[in-house]
Amino acid sequence: MHERTRFTPLAAAVSATLFLLLTAVASLDARQPDEPANDLSSYRSAAERIIRAARAGNDSHTKLEELCLDVGHRLSGSKALDEAVEWAVRALRADGQDNVRAEHVMVPRWVRGRESAELIEPRRAPLAMLGLGGSVATPADGITAEVVVVGDERQLDALGDAVRDKIVLFNNPMPPYDTIRGSSYGETVRFRHGGARLAADKGAVACLIRSVTARSLRSAHTGAMSYGNGNRRIPAAALSIEDAEMIARLAARGKRVVVNLRMEARDEGMVSSANVVAELRGREKPDEIVVIGGHLDSWDVGHGAHDDGAGCVMSMEAVNILRKLRLIPRRTIRVVLFTNEENGLNGAKQYVEDHAHEMGRHVAAIEADSGGFRPTGFSFECEDRTKAAAGERQLRAIAQLMSELGPMRIRSGGSGADVGRMRSKGVFLMGLEVDGSTYFDYHHSHGDTLDKVDPRELTDATAAMAVMAYVIADMPERLGER
Amino acid sequence: MHERTRFTPLAAAVSATLFLLLTAVASLDARQPDEPANDLSSYRSAAERIIRAARAGNDSHTKLEELCLDVGHRLSGSKALDEAVEWAVRALRADGQDNVRAEHVMVPRWVRGRESAELIEPRRAPLAMLGLGGSVATPADGITAEVVVVGDERQLDALGDAVRDKIVLFNNPMPPYDTIRGSSYGETVRFRHGGARLAADKGAVACLIRSVTARSLRSAHTGAMSYGNGNRRIPAAALSIEDAEMIARLAARGKRVVVNLRMEARDEGMVSSANVVAELRGREKPDEIVVIGGHLDSWDVGHGAHDDGAGCVMSMEAVNILRKLRLIPRRTIRVVLFTNEENGLNGAKQYVEDHAHEMGRHVAAIEADSGGFRPTGFSFECEDRTKAAAGERQLRAIAQLMSELGPMRIRSGGSGADVGRMRSKGVFLMGLEVDGSTYFDYHHSHGDTLDKVDPRELTDATAAMAVMAYVIADMPERLGER
Repeated sequence: MHERTRFTPLAAAVSATLFLLLTAVASLDARQPDEPANDLSSYRSAAERIIRAARAGNDSHTKLEELCLDVGHRLSGSKALDEAVEWAVRALRADGQDNVRAEHVMVPRWVRGRESAELIEPRRAPLAMLGLGGSVATPADGITAEVVVVGDERQLDALGDAVRDKIVLFNNPMPPYDTIRGSSYGETVRFRHGGARLAADKGAVACLIRSVTARSLRSAHTGAMSYGNGNRRIPAAALSIEDAEMIARLAARGKRVVVNLRMEARDEGMVSSANVVAELRGREKPDEIVVIGGHLDSWDVGHGAHDDGAGCVMSMEAVNILRKLRLIPRRTIRVVLFTNEENGLNGAKQYVEDHAHEMGRHVAAIEADSGGFRPTGFSFECEDRTKAAAGERQLRAIAQLMSELGPMRIRSGGSGADVGRMRSKGVFLMGLEVDGSTYFDYHHSHGDTLDKVDPRELTDATAAMAVMAYVIADMPERLGER
Repeated sequence: MHERTRFTPLAAAVSATLFLLLTAVASLDARQPDEPANDLSSYRSAAERIIRAARAGNDSHTKLEELCLDVGHRLSGSKALDEAVEWAVRALRADGQDNVRAEHVMVPRWVRGRESAELIEPRRAPLAMLGLGGSVATPADGITAEVVVVGDERQLDALGDAVRDKIVLFNNPMPPYDTIRGSSYGETVRFRHGGARLAADKGAVACLIRSVTARSLRSAHTGAMSYGNGNRRIPAAALSIEDAEMIARLAARGKRVVVNLRMEARDEGMVSSANVVAELRGREKPDEIVVIGGHLDSWDVGHGAHDDGAGCVMSMEAVNILRKLRLIPRRTIRVVLFTNEENGLNGAKQYVEDHAHEMGRHVAAIEADSGGFRPTGFSFECEDRTKAAAGERQLRAIAQLMSELGPMRIRSGGSGADVGRMRSKGVFLMGLEVDGSTYFDYHHSHGDTLDKVDPRELTDATAAMAVMAYVIADMPERLGER
């Protein structure tokens, strides 16, 4: 038929218009071509109620203010983390949540102590630094040695024996945030994690890294590092971008650069801590569980506001909003505030161990650990491919219920460090995704403070968590089934 | 004739087009309707040579690197400032400039000493702070007192006797940079300058201010303060935005906030320093002088890169570029690197005193003290209104010669703190203007470091200084005469 039709320009125009129209109509439902029969759009009014109630007023920022200002930062094993656990239990009880409890976890107690770095040659100047979490100490009068600057592992290898008895500085810059590629944190953080090990293998006496951030006002950023097994352990610290650049430029000009590094850092063994757990008990299938959570511990600088006070208060307040609206879902929504995410993941490991008997009844576990910014969607992963495919369609349908919050994307791959420990159990692992354009400016630094969190963005992120958890917990079919 | 013409739509369209065309042609020359007869467009090729030579390669960034990395920050009275003076003399001599000399100036020596601030109640936490320049010390164990937070002078007044024996915190936020209004530094800095005086008048025991910046990664910003005469002197320091906000929020929630402030700050009297002077001697009227300069001193943090290493190296390199191009102007271009701009202006005062005999022969004095960013134009001021009007037209014509650098604006009003001391002498006072959107993020803080200066922007700013100085120094008529 096609060949025989003679198109006039008008007919062509009408035809093109029709085609566009039909395509448009088709695309309305194009993302879920084989949407399950049970239509999640019946949850639209509940989703709208949740979002409007959150925006009309919620306690996420008040809770964050209490955590950040009354408790402050709270590294594993610190008195402050104990206070944070007490605060969270108290707050969840005050909200009237069910089964509020602190579940015991042993965590490492690493103590920073006093620390400093000073440029000694070619001139004396203090350097802005933070020791890396897990580092060993220097001798009391520090380590004074020449600095060798390398850009990456390849440059270190090329130097061969030349770094013996020297301090190695990994001056690898993290690229600026890119709307397509994101933060580049993943590629750059390897020097923080493993730099000391690489440098020690070459005979270096200490390891410095350029802070893992793209923006700096002479800000040092700490974070976890690891020596691996059986390696010689050398002290490791992060310098501000400014100081790393200064040393690199001095060295590039042929100057001999000598630094004195002093760190009292010490491992004080294992101490008691706890995951904080609370529930919005399900009305029909209370033994089926949707976990939402963040981690209560932080690094020992700033307020741990975006990382991860925000994720904790979002989870706490999500169930608070649902309870106030009397939106009691079919299944149980369980808030879990994990301890020791930053330097051990012992909270997550202990949770999986303690709840092994009910892990099969965990439908989903949603972690918020990317900061309290404007929500942009959810990532997910599920080992069962059939379930993953069915679940993705359901998650897309739920995301569409939140259109008031802006476009929400469902992305396959990735979730969160804590919920990631449940991987082998077949549960849907999920992560709240947010606008990450400034997260790594603050992350693990003195700058991660309450004032960086916009209450409106935190509210919308809280609402996104509440809608997602509610619909997964309430819909008749289990997530991933149809 | 108008009334009698009957316009057809076509005629109307043609007429409108003609009108637009004629308006456009007219506007090509609209900015200088009564341009002086002597046409400065003959300098276009010189201006282009200067800009191209600068962009092909110049030493402004190399000079800045030497000053920032080999000398570092250099507060008045410090050994580092002496080194900076020696460095500048050496560099200007190496460039082959004329009459290179250090002109003696007595400057104050204020020493920061050790300092700290700690939150004591409701919980203990270190605060990011910098003492203000000129502040007195606290007792050795510090001042421990309750903090009263005020937004401005009115709120302080309203409290009456309630701040007696308390620490006053002025938590007045500097608005974000605005492309129309600019930085709002001028309105906000008054608390840094005079806050201690106001607080002391009310019986306060110390004064804290919120750092004068709109962006912070827990960065404290120092700067000059003044007690006035006969006032009780109380210690004064700046807190980071984050810490000021934390205290304000704690207080707003009804918490009693107690801070311990420790400062060893002391005034060590007057010591020797110097302005550094060098010349590109004029070929016809060497006794007529065009000054270009910046200030060599800085605060005692960061590298003093944008404030004002950049202005110094721009001025040094501007004459270097001219000399290399053998562009020897009619009049003398004199580089003056002032000492003690930050806390006394003694360099500027001494220059006016030492050069009183030739002040009448100072044609213009151009200061670069707004950072080494992309140039956007020049401000100017001249007490003689007739000269000012004529000069403005000439400056606009010169600005047009630099179109390769982007649009360059001539703005009436304002110049620079150092050249401002020549005000009563009838000289044209001028200031290089630059894109100031990030300047106050760095200004007077640990973050004002070499890496914040873009070599291409510094080059263009240097070229703008060179073209402006060259044409003013070379044009047959004196600036402001016609």
